[in-house]
Amino acid sequence: MDRDRLLGELNEFLRIPSVSTLPAHNTDCRRAADWVGAELQRLGCSDVQYLGSETHPVVWGKGPAVPDAPTLLIYGHYDVQPPDPLAEWVTPPFEPAVRDGKLFARGAADDKGQVFCLLKAIAALPKPPVNFRFLIEGEEEYGSKVLFDLLKREPQRVRADAILVADMSYVAPGWPAVYTTLRGLAYAEITVRTSKTDLHSGEYGGAAPNAHEELSRLLSRLKGADGKINIPGFYGPVQRPSKTELAAWKKLPFKEKDFLIKRVQGKGLVGLKQYSVLERLWALPTFEIHGITGGFTGEGAKTVIPAEATAKVSMRLVPKQKLAPVERQLAAAVKRLAPKHVTATVRFLHGADPAQIKVNSPAFQLLAQAFKEVTGRGSVPARAGGSIPVVPALAWGGAPVILTGIGLPDDRLHAPNEKLDLKQLWDGIEVFRRFYELLGSLDSEVRSRG
Amino acid sequence: MDRDRLLGELNEFLRIPSVSTLPAHNTDCRRAADWVGAELQRLGCSDVQYLGSETHPVVWGKGPAVPDAPTLLIYGHYDVQPPDPLAEWVTPPFEPAVRDGKLFARGAADDKGQVFCLLKAIAALPKPPVNFRFLIEGEEEYGSKVLFDLLKREPQRVRADAILVADMSYVAPGWPAVYTTLRGLAYAEITVRTSKTDLHSGEYGGAAPNAHEELSRLLSRLKGADGKINIPGFYGPVQRPSKTELAAWKKLPFKEKDFLIKRVQGKGLVGLKQYSVLERLWALPTFEIHGITGGFTGEGAKTVIPAEATAKVSMRLVPKQKLAPVERQLAAAVKRLAPKHVTATVRFLHGADPAQIKVNSPAFQLLAQAFKEVTGRGSVPARAGGSIPVVPALAWGGAPVILTGIGLPDDRLHAPNEKLDLKQLWDGIEVFRRFYELLGSLDSEVRSRG
Repeated sequence: MDRDRLLGELNEFLRIPSVSTLPAHNTDCRRAADWVGAELQRLGCSDVQYLGSETHPVVWGKGPAVPDAPTLLIYGHYDVQPPDPLAEWVTPPFEPAVRDGKLFARGAADDKGQVFCLLKAIAALPKPPVNFRFLIEGEEEYGSKVLFDLLKREPQRVRADAILVADMSYVAPGWPAVYTTLRGLAYAEITVRTSKTDLHSGEYGGAAPNAHEELSRLLSRLKGADGKINIPGFYGPVQRPSKTELAAWKKLPFKEKDFLIKRVQGKGLVGLKQYSVLERLWALPTFEIHGITGGFTGEGAKTVIPAEATAKVSMRLVPKQKLAPVERQLAAAVKRLAPKHVTATVRFLHGADPAQIKVNSPAFQLLAQAFKEVTGRGSVPARAGGSIPVVPALAWGGAPVILTGIGLPDDRLHAPNEKLDLKQLWDGIEVFRRFYELLGSLDSEVRSRG
Repeated sequence: MDRDRLLGELNEFLRIPSVSTLPAHNTDCRRAADWVGAELQRLGCSDVQYLGSETHPVVWGKGPAVPDAPTLLIYGHYDVQPPDPLAEWVTPPFEPAVRDGKLFARGAADDKGQVFCLLKAIAALPKPPVNFRFLIEGEEEYGSKVLFDLLKREPQRVRADAILVADMSYVAPGWPAVYTTLRGLAYAEITVRTSKTDLHSGEYGGAAPNAHEELSRLLSRLKGADGKINIPGFYGPVQRPSKTELAAWKKLPFKEKDFLIKRVQGKGLVGLKQYSVLERLWALPTFEIHGITGGFTGEGAKTVIPAEATAKVSMRLVPKQKLAPVERQLAAAVKRLAPKHVTATVRFLHGADPAQIKVNSPAFQLLAQAFKEVTGRGSVPARAGGSIPVVPALAWGGAPVILTGIGLPDDRLHAPNEKLDLKQLWDGIEVFRRFYELLGSLDSEVRSRG
């Protein structure tokens, strides 16, 4: 492998600020789609298509036909999260920089670096051993609507023997993983209004309600200091992992103290103390506040009583929970908790059902073998706290969805100074190259039992 | 009076966006100071001075000497509050517009329109009946530091027989007032930090603390749903008004229902229910949240767990409370309420002690007489919920400080669509012209008894 050349090509991809959630970056999203399409053409896809959107298209590709070989669908996304707060980046988010063997850039791990890895693993082979299909989307960070719509219209796009999703990480350095669940997501804005316009705190303070105060109280009631989410019905469908699974997690190289000190870098952890930290992260739903607007937030001092305040919040959902009822439950809880002098509304921005995947088809064993050959350890089953909204839809055709990845837990996804360890990238190209090879030699009888 | 000409001149003053709290408007603040200085020269001040600051100077002026007449110091401010939220203004804040006999502009009532009124009342006289002094400052909305420093250095600036401050309003249409107390102010930023950087809510949600959540909880604990401020020691020095004063307030044309429907324009009032609304507004301290920053507040959805969140808050203080101990009490309460996994800090931006004024010197009777002659009703004693930070310092020399004004309670100070009723302005010019005349004819023996 010519690593310098590869790194140069990846940097080109990372330099495109394809932030899907911000309309100002629509052109950049399209540029990133075009970059992916050009790569697919170089891999021999004769019929690259840009589907469903001018600005955030799903890039579809179909590799050269390999008769009698299995079909592998590769999923990934070319869009990235917003980079702010910009001031906390050591080097700018869209100017990739290598320090200490790590490549720093927005999207280095989530997910451009991993899409790059999957594609370059194909390029590293003399000829394709399987029938490749590609679905690389541009709205993963904003609900995957374009891809959802596409799959509803054309479910045959996910017809395959296996679907490979490399948007995840090892559970620890040296511990590759495949994931059996993903948490879902319900993203909403909660708005409270208390008066027609902002009011002077001298003239009105003491008798007029304050929208920020009401919102703070409402948010505090929705989730207690003990970490319990006070939304009636919310925990109803939640099931604990089996004893076997919980026992297996104890063997993983995960130390709560390291998680606090090296990753959170804070003074203490929170949440439902009766459950282990891994269970809180992987098997329990959440309620998080992302940002709050309203009133005066400029420089200096302004003494207004805000008339309106809005919180961006989201809930992560676990298997058996469903997006639609959870949205209804939140709306009802907000209505119930808001006092009479407050007008409270909830607007839902986007969401995703959680995913649960059985990891017993042969492709999982071949991936474990590839990891073992290249890194010395086979992939272990784990769960994921994050969400990939479209994963349940990818499984509509019945193909096993292999959720894996080459990231590390400290990659700072969605945060300043996101990075990808270059060793993970180079190893990853080897792992997937070998996986494709093994999959290509899979006996067709075994395959159909999968 | 040539009202068209006067209105044109006032509009000139109002068009200058002299927002003292925003450094971007430093030049505008200076332009407003120069506008005031030019007016003072036209009134015969031979020695106009710009003191203490290049950008936000105190404008000092000394009118023509009138032997044996009393000295009246006129205080006002040429700075204004920020105009946001801009979208809520019917016409732009710095493009004065008259609708229905009301002049709409930021500063129309607070305080440019009133400064204008005081000055044009002098211009309306054939010759000055008293020895005028002027202190027109440019930092009233940001703590009055320049003026405080000036008065500490040069206390003789407030040597006068009376000090007139017209930065207030009638208690109701047709009910002019003089004010016996002003609430003080302690403005602060409370910041909580929970991790080194923002974190991905999928990877960390359920175990990592969330700065917005912690801040919301902290704010909810600092003030309960019942309106009680939970800062130990805070209410200690607060004294209830006398029975006589409370009885007098009942006679004022103030209806709680009108206050809710016409002024707050909301669905209900809040605060300490065991006290009347007027007592909550005039005689009790407050704790208000003005704005909250941190995390992601852009368009769309970003799933970060914020590492830091900050609330701008302020407390209004009532007589006997003092700024310095209140600041210590807030800092201690925040420290006590913040859980171990949170780093909480408090930064104080500016503040003011409350003011209490005896209204028994002869000048108050003359003002009441002037109001009675012009408007048909003499001024009544009232209290004020707002703050004018420098008022206690103006009283250092022992002169009675006459707190009055020509605004109306619905002028929307600090809020969108601030306005001044033009009738109030024209009446006001007459009232103060007459007051100056009456003060000039005050027997020197009576004056010294004041």
